[in-house]
Amino acid sequence: MGGIVGGMTTDHEEHPGPHGYSGDKAALLGRLRRIEGQIRGLQRMVDEDTYCIDVLTQISAAKSALHAVAVGLLEDHLAHCVVDAARAGDPSAKVKEASDAIARLVRS
Amino acid sequence: MGGIVGGMTTDHEEHPGPHGYSGDKAALLGRLRRIEGQIRGLQRMVDEDTYCIDVLTQISAAKSALHAVAVGLLEDHLAHCVVDAARAGDPSAKVKEASDAIARLVRS
Amino acid sequence: MGGIVGGMTTDHEEHPGPHGYSGDKAALLGRLRRIEGQIRGLQRMVDEDTYCIDVLTQISAAKSALHAVAVGLLEDHLAHCVVDAARAGDPSAKVKEASDAIARLVRS
Amino acid sequence: MGGIVGGMTTDHEEHPGPHGYSGDKAALLGRLRRIEGQIRGLQRMVDEDTYCIDVLTQISAAKSALHAVAVGLLEDHLAHCVVDAARAGDPSAKVKEASDAIARLVRS
Repeated sequence: MGGIVGGMTTDHEEHPGPHGYSGDKAALLGRLRRIEGQIRGLQRMVDEDTYCIDVLTQISAAKSALHAVAVGLLEDHLAHCVVDAARAGDPSAKVKEASDAIARLVRS
Repeated sequence: MGGIVGGMTTDHEEHPGPHGYSGDKAALLGRLRRIEGQIRGLQRMVDEDTYCIDVLTQISAAKSALHAVAVGLLEDHLAHCVVDAARAGDPSAKVKEASDAIARLVRS
Repeated sequence: MGGIVGGMTTDHEEHPGPHGYSGDKAALLGRLRRIEGQIRGLQRMVDEDTYCIDVLTQISAAKSALHAVAVGLLEDHLAHCVVDAARAGDPSAKVKEASDAIARLVRS
Repeated sequence: MGGIVGGMTTDHEEHPGPHGYSGDKAALLGRLRRIEGQIRGLQRMVDEDTYCIDVLTQISAAKSALHAVAVGLLEDHLAHCVVDAARAGDPSAKVKEASDAIARLVRS
């Protein structure tokens, strides 16, 4: 996870964009491109009649990679949106939004 | 979720205990006692040779109930520990702790 | 997992009960009793105002233990119900039932 | 799910390929291409600084779509590999392989 948000959690005053992950946008995009490559690899495996247990192993890997991106985004959201809202006054809406996103992620 | 933390997210100055969920401790304990009942129900089902697909359905229900408790605790943690830390100065340790807990929950 | 179904997957002709897990019923009940103990431990933690991140870690542990029981039951179901149905003729209903249970488990 | 394996679970003698999903390969590839489109959509969202909660919602959707593919492949695996092995003699290796894949999927 550290790769995505490492610099930002300790340096959260400097993010240039409105939503916090801009500073690590390149790293995040790199992760998503690797996941896209995994999904294309899955298509190739299906196309070549790869044994389905091996396809399932690759699906589990892609799912784990998506999780890592999601947890990184959540950490970033907490470090920026929730923290900024707490300092500005009432963070309850941001907190609710974050925990709803966590609930969706856990169940999806 | 609202049941656990409803009053606290909008009223986070008043929680009496050190960890935030004290105000809704009764509701949280009630949820955990219902889950304990579900686990005892599972033992009864196994003991009576209930069809295993029905046992699995009950396991999924218990798992969902555990998730609901976990997401409620996380919301509470964000609303109290993270928000308090943000106001006091540096929330980065609390944010990291929360996102590590989210990562463990998603993978468990 | 092996503990639950170990003997049965290699010896699936001998299970005495109608649903396959009877032979390992004692092991399965032991697992469920340990999970019940984990849930009671969670109640104690909440009652004693344990730091919520530690409660969440214990919830993740209970969830993992429930998963292990579920996967063991599924393996048992495949080794008995699906296999028996395949030998008797048309297993498609048993297969559908098993994959529906897997889908519920993955999403719960 | 039905879309992937519908015809095959009721007609499992006719699949042309060695691993069972060949008959529905086109449908399965279509699903994977839609998931690839979701991942590219995620890159666009990050690139355009979309609010991270909305990115997380899209990640949950992609994860659900991956789950649907995985459960469909598992159903197919049960309907073909496990059933064929049961009829040929000893299905225990296929059963173990399937339940290990389920365990990986549930934890990933």
